[in-house]
Amino acid sequence: MNSLPLAISLGDPAGVGPELIVRCWQTLADTDCGPIAVVGGANVLRRAAERIGIDLPLAQVDRIADAALHWSRALPVLDMADATYTPGEPTADGARLALASLQAACGLARSGEAAALVTAPVAKDNLVAAGFAHPGQTEFLADRCGIAPEDAVMMLAGPRLRTVPITVHVALSEVPGRLTSEKIHRRTAIAAKALQRDFGIAEPRIAIAGLNPHASENGRFGSEEAEIITPAIRVLRDDGHHVTGPHPGDALFTPRARETYDVAVCMYHDQALIPLKALDFDEGVNVTLGLPIVRTSPDHGTAFDIAGEGIADPGAMLAAIRMASDCAARRRENESRS
Amino acid sequence: MNSLPLAISLGDPAGVGPELIVRCWQTLADTDCGPIAVVGGANVLRRAAERIGIDLPLAQVDRIADAALHWSRALPVLDMADATYTPGEPTADGARLALASLQAACGLARSGEAAALVTAPVAKDNLVAAGFAHPGQTEFLADRCGIAPEDAVMMLAGPRLRTVPITVHVALSEVPGRLTSEKIHRRTAIAAKALQRDFGIAEPRIAIAGLNPHASENGRFGSEEAEIITPAIRVLRDDGHHVTGPHPGDALFTPRARETYDVAVCMYHDQALIPLKALDFDEGVNVTLGLPIVRTSPDHGTAFDIAGEGIADPGAMLAAIRMASDCAARRRENESRS
Repeated sequence: MNSLPLAISLGDPAGVGPELIVRCWQTLADTDCGPIAVVGGANVLRRAAERIGIDLPLAQVDRIADAALHWSRALPVLDMADATYTPGEPTADGARLALASLQAACGLARSGEAAALVTAPVAKDNLVAAGFAHPGQTEFLADRCGIAPEDAVMMLAGPRLRTVPITVHVALSEVPGRLTSEKIHRRTAIAAKALQRDFGIAEPRIAIAGLNPHASENGRFGSEEAEIITPAIRVLRDDGHHVTGPHPGDALFTPRARETYDVAVCMYHDQALIPLKALDFDEGVNVTLGLPIVRTSPDHGTAFDIAGEGIADPGAMLAAIRMASDCAARRRENESRS
Repeated sequence: MNSLPLAISLGDPAGVGPELIVRCWQTLADTDCGPIAVVGGANVLRRAAERIGIDLPLAQVDRIADAALHWSRALPVLDMADATYTPGEPTADGARLALASLQAACGLARSGEAAALVTAPVAKDNLVAAGFAHPGQTEFLADRCGIAPEDAVMMLAGPRLRTVPITVHVALSEVPGRLTSEKIHRRTAIAAKALQRDFGIAEPRIAIAGLNPHASENGRFGSEEAEIITPAIRVLRDDGHHVTGPHPGDALFTPRARETYDVAVCMYHDQALIPLKALDFDEGVNVTLGLPIVRTSPDHGTAFDIAGEGIADPGAMLAAIRMASDCAARRRENESRS
C-alpha cells in the first residue's frame, strides 16, 4: 500500500471524469489502494455527486499530504481552481480547470508528493483553446518530465491483453514510412523495462506484430517485416529480451496466442487498440511507460453525450487507479531494494 | 433443411481438414443441417479417422445425389481422386488431391447437384506447385463462376461479429492507394444484398470503419475519410442502405458498438480479421458473398503442426457447414418466393 496519495487530475469537468472519480472513491475508500486526492474542482465534484444521487463527503485540503488523514471517510480534494458544473456542455472555464488540474497533478507526482498520477479524460480541442500546446496529455507529461516524446511509450492494458503501438496518431499512409528498426527496438526496450520495474514481470515475454497481412507471407505483401521488424527483433534478442515475431496481426490476439506473451508490440494505432477495446473495453487502462513518474488513465474519452447521467461505467477509471497504485508500490519496492 | 447434399472439398490431406470433416460428420449426421458429402479422398478420411481413434463408417458413392441415402449412418464420399494420408507432411500428391477436390466440388455446386460448397483449408504454396494459378480459393471460385474477382466479397462471420474487408491481400502501404469510393460502394452493396438473401436480414445495418486512427479526427491524421469513405457512404444511403460511419476502427468493436450493426465494413485485412479472431476464433467462418453459389470455409489454415493429433478444434468447420446449410436453404426459399 502506498502511504503517499495518488494525484488524480479532474479531466474535463463537463465530461464523465468527475462522476467516475466520485464513484471510484466510493469503491476504493479505505482499501489497500491507499489514499487518493483529486487536484482541484471541489465544486464540480460536489455537483456531479448530487446529480447522480450520491451523498458525497468532501474533504478540502490545502496540501496533498493531508489526503491521508481524510480519504477513508471523505474524498480529498486539493483546493485549487474550480468551475461550474455543466455536464455535457464543455466550456472555456472548464477547459482551463482541466488544464490547471493536469499541470498541478503532474507537478505533485514529479516532486514526489504524490505516489502516481491518474488523469481523467480531457477533450483535446478544448484544451488547445485554453492554451495547451501538446498533441495530447502523454506528450505534455513527457515534456514536463524532460523526456523525448518518442520515449514516452503508450501501453494499453486490460485484464486480457497488453499492447504497445509503435506509431500512434499518424495517418495510416504514413505508418510504413515512420517505422524504423531503431524505433521498434527503443520503444520495446522501454516497455520491457517498465514491465519489470512497475508490473513485477521478471522476464517479460514480448510478441511483435508484423505490419502487413499475414506478416507479409515471406515478402508476398510488403517488405517491412524483413527490412525493419525482423532486424529489430534480432537486436532485442541480442540484448537478452524474450521476443517472438513478426506475427501476423490477426493471429496475435486469439485466446491461445494471448497466453504466450505479456505484451504485444504493434505497428500502428488500430492494430493495438482494436483488440484491446474489443476484449477489454470496460477495463482498459492507458499507461505511460518510460516516465520518471507513474501515470495511468482510463482508455476512454470524455463521453460528453452521457455525462451527468450516472450511467458511465467506472470500470476503466477504477482499473487505472488500482494499476497506478500497484505500479507505484512496485516501483518504490524495487528502488528501495536496489 | 436442404434435400441436396452440401459438397465439402477435402482441403490439403496433410492438414487438419480430414479429421475435422470426420468429427463434423459425427456431430451433424442426421441433423437438420441436411446431407453432406466429401468430394474425394476416401482413403485419407478413413486413415485420419483411425489416427484420431474414431470408428468411421464411410459410404463411397459415385454420384453426389446418393449421399442423401447414406449420410445419417455413414460419411458419404464421392469416389474420385485419393492419396496416402501423411498428416503434417504435405506432399505433391496431396496438393493434387486438394486441387481436384476443390475443382470437382465447385462444379457440383455450380451445376446445382450440391446445395452449397464448403471448402476445407488448403496450403496456397502447395496448390500453386500443383498447377493452381489463382491467389486463393475465393479468386478461383469467382473465376469459375464468371464473376470479376473484386465482386467476390469475403465476409468473416462469427457468433459475435461479421466483418467485410474492402482490401484484402495487399501490403499495408498500398491500402490507401487501393481504396476508392466506387470499390467501397460496390462491395458494401454486394454484402448488403447477400445479408438479405442468404442471412435473412431484411434491412442490414452496416457500419463502415475509417482508415486512420480515430477516423482521422476531422482530417487531423489523413484525408481518406473525407475524400473516399464519406462519399461512398453518401451514395449507399442514397441507394436506401442503412449505413453509419466512418467510425474510428478501435471504437467499432466494443461490446456496445457491436450491438448497433449487422456487418462492419473494414478498409483492410487486419482491421477486419483482428477483431473477428480475437472474439470468435474458434467459430469464425469465411463466407464468399456475391457468387451464384453459396460458399463457406472455416477461418483457419491447414495447421500442419497439429494435424493428425486429434486436438484441432472442429468449431469453425462445424460453423462453416451449418452456415452453408442455412444460407442455401434461405436462398432457395427466397428464390422460390420470387
